[in-house]
Amino acid sequence: MFPYKTSLHINRRSKEPLFLQLTNQFIHLIKEGTIPSGTKLIGTRSLAELLQVHRKTIVACYEELVMQGWLEAIPKKGTFVPKDLPFLKSEDYRGNEISNHTDQIGFSYYKSNLHHRTIEKKDDWMYINDGVSDGRLTPTEDLAKIYRRISSRKNITKHLGYISTQGNDQLRNVLANYLNETRGLSITKEHILITRGSQMGIWLSAQLLLKEEDIIVVGETNYASADITFLHQKAKVLRVPVDENGIDTVALENICESQQIKGVYVTSHHHHPTTVTLSAERRICLLNLAKKYSFAIIEDDYDYDFNYNHAPILPLASHDVHNNVIYIGSVCKTVAPVFRVGYLIANKEFVNEASQIRGLVDRQGDALLELTFAEFIESGDLDRHIRKVHKVYEKRRDLFCDLLREELNEYFSFKKPKGGMAVWLTLNKKYTWLEVTRAARKYKLEIGNFSRYDMAKTNHNAIRMGFARFNVAELHELIKRMKLTMIDLANLEKFA
Amino acid sequence: MFPYKTSLHINRRSKEPLFLQLTNQFIHLIKEGTIPSGTKLIGTRSLAELLQVHRKTIVACYEELVMQGWLEAIPKKGTFVPKDLPFLKSEDYRGNEISNHTDQIGFSYYKSNLHHRTIEKKDDWMYINDGVSDGRLTPTEDLAKIYRRISSRKNITKHLGYISTQGNDQLRNVLANYLNETRGLSITKEHILITRGSQMGIWLSAQLLLKEEDIIVVGETNYASADITFLHQKAKVLRVPVDENGIDTVALENICESQQIKGVYVTSHHHHPTTVTLSAERRICLLNLAKKYSFAIIEDDYDYDFNYNHAPILPLASHDVHNNVIYIGSVCKTVAPVFRVGYLIANKEFVNEASQIRGLVDRQGDALLELTFAEFIESGDLDRHIRKVHKVYEKRRDLFCDLLREELNEYFSFKKPKGGMAVWLTLNKKYTWLEVTRAARKYKLEIGNFSRYDMAKTNHNAIRMGFARFNVAELHELIKRMKLTMIDLANLEKFA
Repeated sequence: MFPYKTSLHINRRSKEPLFLQLTNQFIHLIKEGTIPSGTKLIGTRSLAELLQVHRKTIVACYEELVMQGWLEAIPKKGTFVPKDLPFLKSEDYRGNEISNHTDQIGFSYYKSNLHHRTIEKKDDWMYINDGVSDGRLTPTEDLAKIYRRISSRKNITKHLGYISTQGNDQLRNVLANYLNETRGLSITKEHILITRGSQMGIWLSAQLLLKEEDIIVVGETNYASADITFLHQKAKVLRVPVDENGIDTVALENICESQQIKGVYVTSHHHHPTTVTLSAERRICLLNLAKKYSFAIIEDDYDYDFNYNHAPILPLASHDVHNNVIYIGSVCKTVAPVFRVGYLIANKEFVNEASQIRGLVDRQGDALLELTFAEFIESGDLDRHIRKVHKVYEKRRDLFCDLLREELNEYFSFKKPKGGMAVWLTLNKKYTWLEVTRAARKYKLEIGNFSRYDMAKTNHNAIRMGFARFNVAELHELIKRMKLTMIDLANLEKFA
Repeated sequence: MFPYKTSLHINRRSKEPLFLQLTNQFIHLIKEGTIPSGTKLIGTRSLAELLQVHRKTIVACYEELVMQGWLEAIPKKGTFVPKDLPFLKSEDYRGNEISNHTDQIGFSYYKSNLHHRTIEKKDDWMYINDGVSDGRLTPTEDLAKIYRRISSRKNITKHLGYISTQGNDQLRNVLANYLNETRGLSITKEHILITRGSQMGIWLSAQLLLKEEDIIVVGETNYASADITFLHQKAKVLRVPVDENGIDTVALENICESQQIKGVYVTSHHHHPTTVTLSAERRICLLNLAKKYSFAIIEDDYDYDFNYNHAPILPLASHDVHNNVIYIGSVCKTVAPVFRVGYLIANKEFVNEASQIRGLVDRQGDALLELTFAEFIESGDLDRHIRKVHKVYEKRRDLFCDLLREELNEYFSFKKPKGGMAVWLTLNKKYTWLEVTRAARKYKLEIGNFSRYDMAKTNHNAIRMGFARFNVAELHELIKRMKLTMIDLANLEKFA
C-alpha cells in the first residue's frame, strides 16, 4: 500500500482547511507520478483513521480531486487515479522538497543591456542625488486626506472600473486650464495624456517617433534616462554641443542639412544635467528648425517650477504654432516621485496614438490619484506648495553654493544655477569621480553612479549634485564629508 | 511707434502678476517678429502711462525680458530687441489668435493599428462587460483609510522618493507569503515584480520573450488584449483549439515538433473567453511540453479567486519545477480595476530583466498604494473581501443562468460556468451579434465590441457576458432588455 501516513502531512494551525491541504498534497503526489495513474486509492474511512481526521474531511478531499480531474470515482469499484493521466517529468524533483528546485530558467528570452539598480539606503549615510525634492516638505497628509475624501463619495463607483487610457477627464480639464495659465499653452483636455510620470512620456514619444536607425538629436551631455530610452528603441542618437545657452542649434542645423532627423530631445528650462537655460535666440531657432525640417521637439520641462532669479520661462510648447512640440512634465519633482502623475501634451491625434500604446503597457491610470491631483491643483494647493518649497530651495541653493565656494573651491568649480535643485559640479582634473566615490564611502557619503552624466564619454569630469533634499544642518554635514574626502585624496596625491 | 496700447492687454482679474502678463505678451510679439530685432523699445515711464500701470511693473517686465534674453539694455541708449534675434516663422500664425492654429502635426510618426476606445457611459444605459467586479462591493473607503493612515506615518518620507523598479519590499514580502499560502507557490520576494496590473505583466513577458517572427501559441479563442500585445510585438501568433478541457495540448505538441516556440499564453483557471478550466491531464501535459521543448508558459491567473463549485485550482506555477512558468495576476478583478496593483512571478533573473524594462516605461510603482495593499492583504482584509463577494457573485451567476435559460433559451446556448464573472453565450446562428448590438440600443443596452471574442475569425457566434457587476434587479432588467431585443429581431426575421 502507498505510504499515505508518511506522505501526507496535516497542519492544524494553517489557515488552509484540512481537506484542501490534503487535496493539494494529493495533486502533487499524482502529478509527480508518486501515486501512479491507475492506482486505486485507499477508502475514505481507512484514510481518515490513518490520518486521525474526520471522515468527512477525506470525503471532501476525494470529491474535490474528482471534480478537478485528478481522481475518478468508479461506482462499486472505488476511487482511482485516471489511467491516462500523464505524470510530470521532473527528474531532479522527485523525492525532493519543492524549495530545493534550482532557479535555473526553463526557456530562453532576450536580455536588455539595462542595469538600473536602486541603492538600499542606510540611515546614517548621505546619498547624493541628481536633484530630488525633500520628502519632508511633501504635503503627503494633505493629499491623503483628499484621496480619502474622494474615496468616500457616493458617485465614486463610476471611477472604479475600466476607464479611458488617456486618463481621468476631470484631471485633464483641470490640467489644461492650469498649464494654459501657468505655461502660456493653449490646449484642451484632448491634447493631454495623463502618464505615470515624465519617463512614460519620453518612452511613449520614443515609441511613436523612432524605429531602428531613426535619428534623434540630444545634447552632448544629456539626461541619461532619455538617452537610454532612445538607445533601447535602437534609434541612432546624435549629439550636439551644449554651452551656457543650452544646446547648439547651429550644430543641429548642420545635422538637419545632411540627414532627416525624427526628433530633438531637450530640457529647455535648465538643461539636464548642466542646469543652463536654453536662450531666447536658440528657442526661436529650434522652433524654426523643427518647422523647416519637420522634426519633433520632445520638450521635457521637469524643472519649470524652480527658477529663482526671475519669472518662469515659458516652454517652447507655448509658442508651438506648427505642432512640433511634444511637451512632457510631471509632479514628481514638484511634489514627490511617489505620486505617479505626469502628462504628455501634443496634437490630438498624436495623443490618441500615444494613449493606445500606453494601454498596451499599463491598461489605465489610477483614477483616485488623478482625482486627488485634480482637486489639489484646482484648489490652488499645488501653487501654494510650490511657493513654499521655492523659497526653501532657493535658500538651500544659496547656502550650498556659498559652502562649496568657501570650503571646496580648490577641488571643484561650478556656476551658481539660476534654478532647479542641483548644481553642475566640475571636479579638478587632478582627481576622478571614481576616486572621490570610493574615498567618500569612508565618511558614509555615497556619490552614486557618476558615469550617467557622461553618456558621450567626453570626460568633462562633472556631476550633478542635488541640494534640495538637504536642510541647513545636512548641507553643512554634506560639505564636511566632502571636504574630509577631498583632503584624504589630496594627501594621498601628495605622498604618492 | 509700435502700437503698444492695442497690442498689450492687461487682465487685472488674472492670478498672473501684471508684469508677467506683459512679459509673456512681449515674448510672443518678439518671437513672431511683430516687434522686429533691433527695435528700440519705448521708455518704461511712457509705457506705464500708456497702459495705466505703475512704472515699477514695466521696469520689472523689462528686467525680466533682459534676464530671459529677449531684450538687451544698452547703457545710455535704451532697451532693444537684440539685433541677431531670429523671429519665429509662422506664416499662418501672424496676426491671428493662438487658438486659431490648426491641429495639423508638424512631424511624422509611426501609427499603430490599435484602436482601443472607452465608451462614455450614460446613466440609464446598461453596458455589457466581459466580467468585471461590482464597484459597489469594492472596499474603497477601507483602502483609503489605510492609505491615509500610512501617509501620516513619521517614517513615510523614505517611501516618497525614487525607489526600486521591482516594487515596494513590504508588499513583495507579504505577497510572497500570501501566494505561497493560497496558490501553493514557493517563492520569495526576489521572484516578484510588482506591476500596474496583469496587462503590464503580459506586455513585459512579450518584451522579453518575443521578437519579430518569434512564435507564441494561444487558444483559438483567446483574451483579445493578450493577442493584441503579442501581435504588436510582431510575433507570430499560432492558435490551438480550445474545448471543454481548455487548450488542446496534442495540437500544441504537433506545433512544437516542427518549430521552436517561445511561449504559450494560457488562462488555465477559466479560459478567457470561454470560461472552461484546463483539465488536470492537460496541466501536466503542458508543463511536460514546456520542459521538453524549452518554452515559457505565460499563466494569466485572472480568475483564481472565483471558483464556485469546488476549491480553487492551484495554478501551473505551483508545480513549476523547471521554471517554465511566468505567473501573472492582479487585484483588478478581485478588488477593482482602479487599484493598479498586479504582479509578475518568475525566476529571479527573469524578474530582474522585466523590472529593467518596466523602469524604462514607468519609472516605478506607487509606494503608498503598494503599502496600502501590503496591509490589506496581511491583515486578512483581502481574504474577507474575497469571501464576501464570492458568495454574492455565485448567487448572481445562478440567477443569471436561470434567467437566461427561462427567458432566452431559444436564442442563446451556454454552459453554466464553474467560476468567474462571465458566461460564454453562443447566439443562435439565425442571428448575428452585429444585429443584436444594433437592435439592443433601442433598449439602452450596449453590447460593446463583440469582435474581440473572435480574433481568429472562426464565427463561433459567442460572446462573453459578465454578470458580476449587476445586482438582482439589474440582472432581471438586463434579461428584459435582451429579450425585447431578441423579440424585435425574431419579428424582423418573420416578416422579412
